[in-house]
Amino acid sequence: MRFVLAIGSTHTATIDGISAAGASADLLFHTPAADAEIVEYGRPVRAPVTPVSPSGCPTPAVITRSVRELIDFDVLVIEAGLAVSTAAPTIQMANEPGEDIRECVSVPAATEVFERARDLGGRLPDEELIIGESIPGGTTTALGVLSALGEPFGVSSSMKENPLALKREVVAVGVKASGLAYGAASDAPLEALRTMGDPVLTAVAGVVVGALDAEKRVILAGGTQMLTAAATVRHFGVCDPLELATTAYIAREGDVDIKGVSDDLDIALSVTDPKFEQETHEELRAYDDGEAKEGVGMGGALFVAEREGVPMSHVRDQTISCYERLVNDNG
Amino acid sequence: MRFVLAIGSTHTATIDGISAAGASADLLFHTPAADAEIVEYGRPVRAPVTPVSPSGCPTPAVITRSVRELIDFDVLVIEAGLAVSTAAPTIQMANEPGEDIRECVSVPAATEVFERARDLGGRLPDEELIIGESIPGGTTTALGVLSALGEPFGVSSSMKENPLALKREVVAVGVKASGLAYGAASDAPLEALRTMGDPVLTAVAGVVVGALDAEKRVILAGGTQMLTAAATVRHFGVCDPLELATTAYIAREGDVDIKGVSDDLDIALSVTDPKFEQETHEELRAYDDGEAKEGVGMGGALFVAEREGVPMSHVRDQTISCYERLVNDNG
Repeated sequence: MRFVLAIGSTHTATIDGISAAGASADLLFHTPAADAEIVEYGRPVRAPVTPVSPSGCPTPAVITRSVRELIDFDVLVIEAGLAVSTAAPTIQMANEPGEDIRECVSVPAATEVFERARDLGGRLPDEELIIGESIPGGTTTALGVLSALGEPFGVSSSMKENPLALKREVVAVGVKASGLAYGAASDAPLEALRTMGDPVLTAVAGVVVGALDAEKRVILAGGTQMLTAAATVRHFGVCDPLELATTAYIAREGDVDIKGVSDDLDIALSVTDPKFEQETHEELRAYDDGEAKEGVGMGGALFVAEREGVPMSHVRDQTISCYERLVNDNG
Repeated sequence: MRFVLAIGSTHTATIDGISAAGASADLLFHTPAADAEIVEYGRPVRAPVTPVSPSGCPTPAVITRSVRELIDFDVLVIEAGLAVSTAAPTIQMANEPGEDIRECVSVPAATEVFERARDLGGRLPDEELIIGESIPGGTTTALGVLSALGEPFGVSSSMKENPLALKREVVAVGVKASGLAYGAASDAPLEALRTMGDPVLTAVAGVVVGALDAEKRVILAGGTQMLTAAATVRHFGVCDPLELATTAYIAREGDVDIKGVSDDLDIALSVTDPKFEQETHEELRAYDDGEAKEGVGMGGALFVAEREGVPMSHVRDQTISCYERLVNDNG
């Protein structure tokens, strides 16, 4: 098994109110780089920030890293349009961050990024890939792609209150700018990615299509962004078995019927509950309160932990120790 | 422990007769990329070649990978001037391959590469780094740097017959072009790297200086190129403990008194003998016959295997199985 993490940026995230990471410009730009460093090294190495929400809720990278400390798995970070560099080793798939989807085109190099990623997905030697993402603003671009594809489901948020009305407004502006009516790219998923997507979603779709074509088992690890990646793959006409591993925090959220949508797309769904509410550690309990919910492949990491028989209490303990290491490092 | 592998190219390698990898242009350009993929994935993934010598002797990457399959260790590939891209995840330290050292300047960006690498070496979270290299032509550039530093020892070769006279001739042309008399850069090691070195040696020196400054244990893994890196670090005025882990094939070679030089430089030397002559596998026995000898951190990987109590017979078995996998993949 190899854990693939696609990281990047989209200028869409700079729209006021869109992204939790956007609460500060520093977090916005450095979060994907820091997330990759946390998964790779256990703490930020070059990134000047530790991604925590204003309430202290840590990035899901901490949970993914903690599982990795319990079950050593291989990691491959795919760089898909970072705004700042990361000290994690990466394979470069896209050089430029995505444009604001309110512009006419959001991923000008979508075809090259997709093809490069597809090639890589087919070449990786592993029989199983678990694929996660870190891109602030990514649920908004996902909503844009869903609109272009004509998929009716919505997206969640890493914030407690999902600014869904704002996201729909942004998407509406983008759809108009791109000249793409709702569902107009149903048979042209690359066009949906190019006009309304982001480089991370584009790279993820490419890796998945390539890996499925090479008969690998593919598990998308995440929430509605990864469900959007799955939908995009289906619009490419790929019918192979495909899985989504997500957290209970996504599954129990009211905004999206993740089970129903997965069924409709013929995606096998796994939901893992780390039960952070059983801890006295307030920052982790924020997850139970609706913060963060998913990201950086957290659902996939928890899925693997459960599959390997690691008790969730061990995952929680490791997460707390990893979190404290991060906070003390920065203190 | 983290195993750091610096990969790159120098145009010096294209000089007829300099490099074993230079026997074919394909191997010359693709060897470092393929070596990184072998260490990372167990086989070339994007590189179109499997680096074997004309006699079938496999790249030392196979041995390093085999040890990694026995004792899982973290790998960090540093890209320092690759001529072609690799599918291994990397951190980019230098964008351009080194120039032919017969030119006036061989690493125009030496200062930036060194500083970037020094910063990284200090930031890595590990208490111990083991550092190897893959750069065709690297012993010739090493000889160039030694000449600029005024270090009297020579270099070995991955070929059975070391073309040392040719290397000295190339270095003499380079020294003249750079206007640097023998030993003229004794107090200016960055100048030695810039005029006579290659980007890999520059990045390795940077990582080592940064890591030692951060009080890490550093083990250079390799032969005379890594000994040159050690010498360069000493010329930077760094007196911290430093180690070299190499193979018996380097230690028993007549061209360089690796023990004597290590002592002179205050480098603790470890020599590991994988005893390939005990195998019937002809391609591995080529090592005993003086081919390849070292590279891609092989000596360091063997050192770690021995430290972890892995019998060399296991390393040999794993190497044979890894080699056969590679050959069959390409067959």
